[in-house]
Amino acid sequence: MHEKTKGVKRALLPGRFQPPHWGHFRLIKWVLERFDEVIIVIGSAQKSHSFSNPFTAGERIEMLRLGLKDVGIDLSRVFMIPVTDIETNFVWPRWVEMFVPRFDCVVSGNPLVARLFFEYGYCVITPPMFDRERYSATVVRRLMLKGDAEWRSLVPPSVAEYIESIGGVERLRRVTEV
Amino acid sequence: MHEKTKGVKRALLPGRFQPPHWGHFRLIKWVLERFDEVIIVIGSAQKSHSFSNPFTAGERIEMLRLGLKDVGIDLSRVFMIPVTDIETNFVWPRWVEMFVPRFDCVVSGNPLVARLFFEYGYCVITPPMFDRERYSATVVRRLMLKGDAEWRSLVPPSVAEYIESIGGVERLRRVTEV
Amino acid sequence: MHEKTKGVKRALLPGRFQPPHWGHFRLIKWVLERFDEVIIVIGSAQKSHSFSNPFTAGERIEMLRLGLKDVGIDLSRVFMIPVTDIETNFVWPRWVEMFVPRFDCVVSGNPLVARLFFEYGYCVITPPMFDRERYSATVVRRLMLKGDAEWRSLVPPSVAEYIESIGGVERLRRVTEV
Amino acid sequence: MHEKTKGVKRALLPGRFQPPHWGHFRLIKWVLERFDEVIIVIGSAQKSHSFSNPFTAGERIEMLRLGLKDVGIDLSRVFMIPVTDIETNFVWPRWVEMFVPRFDCVVSGNPLVARLFFEYGYCVITPPMFDRERYSATVVRRLMLKGDAEWRSLVPPSVAEYIESIGGVERLRRVTEV
Amino acid sequence: MHEKTKGVKRALLPGRFQPPHWGHFRLIKWVLERFDEVIIVIGSAQKSHSFSNPFTAGERIEMLRLGLKDVGIDLSRVFMIPVTDIETNFVWPRWVEMFVPRFDCVVSGNPLVARLFFEYGYCVITPPMFDRERYSATVVRRLMLKGDAEWRSLVPPSVAEYIESIGGVERLRRVTEV
Amino acid sequence: MHEKTKGVKRALLPGRFQPPHWGHFRLIKWVLERFDEVIIVIGSAQKSHSFSNPFTAGERIEMLRLGLKDVGIDLSRVFMIPVTDIETNFVWPRWVEMFVPRFDCVVSGNPLVARLFFEYGYCVITPPMFDRERYSATVVRRLMLKGDAEWRSLVPPSVAEYIESIGGVERLRRVTEV
Repeated sequence: MHEKTKGVKRALLPGRFQPPHWGHFRLIKWVLERFDEVIIVIGSAQKSHSFSNPFTAGERIEMLRLGLKDVGIDLSRVFMIPVTDIETNFVWPRWVEMFVPRFDCVVSGNPLVARLFFEYGYCVITPPMFDRERYSATVVRRLMLKGDAEWRSLVPPSVAEYIESIGGVERLRRVTEV
Repeated sequence: MHEKTKGVKRALLPGRFQPPHWGHFRLIKWVLERFDEVIIVIGSAQKSHSFSNPFTAGERIEMLRLGLKDVGIDLSRVFMIPVTDIETNFVWPRWVEMFVPRFDCVVSGNPLVARLFFEYGYCVITPPMFDRERYSATVVRRLMLKGDAEWRSLVPPSVAEYIESIGGVERLRRVTEV
Repeated sequence: MHEKTKGVKRALLPGRFQPPHWGHFRLIKWVLERFDEVIIVIGSAQKSHSFSNPFTAGERIEMLRLGLKDVGIDLSRVFMIPVTDIETNFVWPRWVEMFVPRFDCVVSGNPLVARLFFEYGYCVITPPMFDRERYSATVVRRLMLKGDAEWRSLVPPSVAEYIESIGGVERLRRVTEV
Repeated sequence: MHEKTKGVKRALLPGRFQPPHWGHFRLIKWVLERFDEVIIVIGSAQKSHSFSNPFTAGERIEMLRLGLKDVGIDLSRVFMIPVTDIETNFVWPRWVEMFVPRFDCVVSGNPLVARLFFEYGYCVITPPMFDRERYSATVVRRLMLKGDAEWRSLVPPSVAEYIESIGGVERLRRVTEV
Repeated sequence: MHEKTKGVKRALLPGRFQPPHWGHFRLIKWVLERFDEVIIVIGSAQKSHSFSNPFTAGERIEMLRLGLKDVGIDLSRVFMIPVTDIETNFVWPRWVEMFVPRFDCVVSGNPLVARLFFEYGYCVITPPMFDRERYSATVVRRLMLKGDAEWRSLVPPSVAEYIESIGGVERLRRVTEV
Repeated sequence: MHEKTKGVKRALLPGRFQPPHWGHFRLIKWVLERFDEVIIVIGSAQKSHSFSNPFTAGERIEMLRLGLKDVGIDLSRVFMIPVTDIETNFVWPRWVEMFVPRFDCVVSGNPLVARLFFEYGYCVITPPMFDRERYSATVVRRLMLKGDAEWRSLVPPSVAEYIESIGGVERLRRVTEV
């Protein structure tokens, strides 16, 4: 008898999702048009409460899930797996591999991530950018800091609500004061 | 407007799942009769290739998923989150909390886990034992080592197939030779 | 019979004290006018021999003690506890809590520290600044580097003597050469 | 002018103090008859909630302080410094040295501790044993587990009260259930 | 032009060498009859001063070198590389790979080491045992503890001298006292 | 009888060797004119795949060896030992000491390295600079990034070949893209 997951095609999608925005959700859709399942790796999972990483891994999972529902993606095709950083680039792809189900390709626009998985032997796909000037987590966080409500339009409505329900904008401001 | 997850009741279910067996799946069902969603914490996520922890976190996620499908549990009600060990008991509940979505109660029959979350301020539920003499991961691994095919009856069929497809019994034997 | 420490009010005062200066000692006095005891947390305790952190935790304890004696503070009302960094903001308040006696409030002018303890559930007090332009550890270290003896006026006399007795200025210069 | 601490003789006294008992307090007195000041290193500071290490470092500091007051020791002659473990014996004495003020000798009846500081170049003193069969932290914990109130006679009264006020015996029982 | 090391056949030889004995040196010779070069990995490199690991990595390198000279092995065909432990079996082969030059096969009689490198994709060779009852580091250390000078016959003369010159037997006794 | 290494004079030479260039090899020769043996410490051994540290420790060992052969240095007088970083300056010299054979002096032009070993008690020698404007690993890497083949003249021919054989220039470019 055969392993039940053999025929399933899976992509690995690493990111930090601080926070997840429309660009991420379009990318996930794009991946699911090409693969049966997607494994979202929530990187820098031990980080939070800083400008680059305001939200905990748990909060990011919550937001991803809310956004996936908004967008109508079948949750049973998605894995969401937090992975802590190790400061050892050579070892990192194997560290990630340990925490996730078997996968076929890595989807990443990050040159370092792409190079590390390529040298480790994986197929790496560079995805299209979805209006990257606009849909960027850095832009979202900068708008939040400036008090510009425009950031709400860059993320799905449930994500915006969630961020407000946990006082996320206030937190971002506090932790970035000098 | 309210946070969308506010009304949802969630239980945290920590374990090692080396491997997941019928006792685990009955427990998950029992939890889902009492809570809307369950967050399965796959503990000691950095461990594998030993007698106590033969399988990687990724393999355990794969097996849990296969078993959940066998049993007919709705995957959209389940989170599966690997968490690495820290050797600092007092800090551990907060470490776990960082990686998972908000939850209401902890379900655990492990006295140390129960105590740590209780002192940290969480509601802790001791679940019933489902034929624990028989359905125990330690028993499964011991049968594997003895070459007794009986272990297959203690796990869902997909889990047994998966273990064989990755050479799990062979691995267990090798890594426990002296 | 009751726990003997129950009625005692304690404040937690985290800092790096690189080195401790008049601003720190005034602050400690201010705290001891409002609390029975103060727990000084010597943060980044594993760091030394850099521009930002020239002195070891042990040297900082030595200097704090000398300064407290200069200022006439009752040592039996003061705890001094070195705490190493962890790069996980969410977990940090609990990490600190593990190493120190029970306390009632946190006194901190550092926005990140204040936010982390606030989210963890503690009362947080923002203390007044005591001539902060002048009394600042960064200013002390810059004067040292420039060879400007003025730095001695910013710290209690015993602290200045101590720094010279261990060759602290020379060390600071050496470790900051490129 | 000379460093103010130059003439002061200090001993380093490493231990785990799980919990501190009469043997520890007699030892501290014995040390203070021979040295001006004692630096108590609270080892394995990151451990708690196990049979060997039931109490956090903060709780151990609290107990040591209560016991020192019971015994009438001048707190201004005592440093209490928690130090986390590193699993690297060769480096350990230097790790400890970093967190503590300058000291002259190490007082330890533990052969490994004595050897490590001896090879590192310190004077090491083996103290007398104060009725060690009776005054032993392991004995205290075993009596607690058995429900034998006799353990109270092995520690100063304030320490016994403190342990009860935090539910220490209950904790010890819970974390050692299988 | 081609990489100069392309044609060179190298074996990886992991061990702890606590201390290196005749069995190890025969094995190294056996390897060098089959490969051009050998990479000796000195495992558990951060450990020392315990019964299982009495010597530091540096001391083990010193002893290996002395023994290799005694035996007449060409040092230019040997790499000696200390590697610290990581408690993550799945990642360990890649961790080792990072610290060493390219190699072709792993030579190991340790079933766990063999299995980990096999699953990682390397050729693994099980070497013959050279009178293993007699030539075993555990036996050497037990004889040392018993004060039986017979241990000297189990290691090359230079290794025995070296151990005595650093007080190795005395150290072993001290660190294993209770 | 005496320890065989007693009369041997050894120097410790710490560096990162990213990559090793003519300046390094001249320095090694200069050291070997003054000492019997040199212990090359390959620092930041866990780092690779970044602009500052493109090569793994294993690749750096490979390059050092090739260069040493080009230059005609007797490999039996050279130790090459990778050492991972610890972020604790005070402890670092002892950490290094643990992994290497006994040595007499440290040779370093890095002020921090020199200071740390000096405070730890070692003799420290500042070596002459060999045309440092030109022979610098940073310069080599910048030329590589610019696509200027001039970098090949700054390293021994075997090192240049090796870098090309592993696609080192391509890697450097990829991992430094934003």
